[in-house]
Amino acid sequence: MLQLDTKNREINMLQETKTAILVIGGAEDKVHGREILHTFWLKSGSKESKIAIIPSASREPTIIGDRYLKIFEDMGSKYLKVLDIRDRSQGDNSSFKEYIEECTGVFLTGGDQLRLCGLLADTPIMERIRQRVHLGEITLAGTSAGAAVMGHHMIAGGSSGESPNRALVDMAMGLGIIPEVIVDQHFHNRNRMARLLSAISNHPECLGVGIDEDTCAMFDGHGIITVMGRGTVSIVDARSMSYTNQGKIGAEEPLSLHNLQIHILSYGDGYNLKKHQPIKAN
Amino acid sequence: MLQLDTKNREINMLQETKTAILVIGGAEDKVHGREILHTFWLKSGSKESKIAIIPSASREPTIIGDRYLKIFEDMGSKYLKVLDIRDRSQGDNSSFKEYIEECTGVFLTGGDQLRLCGLLADTPIMERIRQRVHLGEITLAGTSAGAAVMGHHMIAGGSSGESPNRALVDMAMGLGIIPEVIVDQHFHNRNRMARLLSAISNHPECLGVGIDEDTCAMFDGHGIITVMGRGTVSIVDARSMSYTNQGKIGAEEPLSLHNLQIHILSYGDGYNLKKHQPIKAN
Repeated sequence: MLQLDTKNREINMLQETKTAILVIGGAEDKVHGREILHTFWLKSGSKESKIAIIPSASREPTIIGDRYLKIFEDMGSKYLKVLDIRDRSQGDNSSFKEYIEECTGVFLTGGDQLRLCGLLADTPIMERIRQRVHLGEITLAGTSAGAAVMGHHMIAGGSSGESPNRALVDMAMGLGIIPEVIVDQHFHNRNRMARLLSAISNHPECLGVGIDEDTCAMFDGHGIITVMGRGTVSIVDARSMSYTNQGKIGAEEPLSLHNLQIHILSYGDGYNLKKHQPIKAN
Repeated sequence: MLQLDTKNREINMLQETKTAILVIGGAEDKVHGREILHTFWLKSGSKESKIAIIPSASREPTIIGDRYLKIFEDMGSKYLKVLDIRDRSQGDNSSFKEYIEECTGVFLTGGDQLRLCGLLADTPIMERIRQRVHLGEITLAGTSAGAAVMGHHMIAGGSSGESPNRALVDMAMGLGIIPEVIVDQHFHNRNRMARLLSAISNHPECLGVGIDEDTCAMFDGHGIITVMGRGTVSIVDARSMSYTNQGKIGAEEPLSLHNLQIHILSYGDGYNLKKHQPIKAN
């Protein structure tokens, strides 16, 4: 009961804040308008922001960490730190923990989502980030692999160019920041509809969220997603699925999924996570 | 009124027959089980079949015509003819017209759907084929380009790897055999969901039918589609679409499409075109 009250309090507090979770489909504009990164920066407190960049998904954390460092520096941030966690023990590093207490925004770079979860899941630093995000105290963004980890169930990998089938997708546990979604990125760009459908067939209670490159699904604290960027966000809603052969067939056999709802959302469109309804752009 | 009566009579006759229209997603098995081609052959009358192969979509009509000739010969057909139409004037060729009167099945090969329509649309031969198909007198199959031409509206070409947008798809007039559908082929294989969605955004009254490779959507005379083969048939039903920005935006801007129904159908599944409902495999 105490736990539930705490949760409710957390949700209420989130609703009162202006922080957000930015789930970015990869390949976001880093050179020109940089609208998505700029929005993250604004939501993190703009010139007063204190941003933690976590490049742990990448095998080149120094290069990628520096790249984002320069971008946010260029926007006007004075307080920036790359938390270059390469070992799980660093997830308890006291100077990192201190920075997380003070920061206003956390940015998860691209790379390999399994690597990111392997290094961060259940570490004190990650737990504290999650808590502060849920309290609405800080803004979180993740791009590509950093986006994939947002749900409880995570697409760890897979392939494309086939009909939907269970073997097309490798699932793992994500960081559970937005537990009810399964995110896929580089979505229409890399032919991932079949992969997302395959993931959803096994978790129809989750909402499939396929995000195109240079596109962002921004989750506010009120259960509203807003779309920003150059592409679309595809919402796959299987709550009304009337039939699937999932569980009755071999892993490589084609899947049936009857009666799915799909919404293609573009710039300015939204989605109400509680009402399960799309919202058209003004 | 006379026209309407004729149409009704045609539909009724079609319902009483066992012929079908096989819409094949390309790359159908030509070597091993050859189930789809064998079904076409059976529906055309098996050993008593008299099959017309039309390779006009292809720029190598001799090679592709011969290939299908040998396949059906191998199955046991004695009466086979390649109608190698390379010029619209041949669409009135009397020996071809005679053969169409006698045949029990017509097979349209792959190639370029614009080429196929350019050579065949509105020719006496094509008109007679359509009439006999609608009368339920003959079975028709089309693979790849031969599948694309089935609807009134046809996807003539386009690209992939982008968010749905109007410039992603080139539309043209098809042969209108099954007027109410827009077919796309090599569907999940070639990342064509965005292209089909883009086509449907402009024609929400049409049913989008995306067919994977080595997969067939078989239309019987009763308004029922049945799925056969190795992949899936994706049905995109936009009748309940609540919003699209199509028409308000530039051709290359990302599309919104809210509240689409999608069904992924696999082997043995069906779809009722009149009730707009998927049917699960037995």
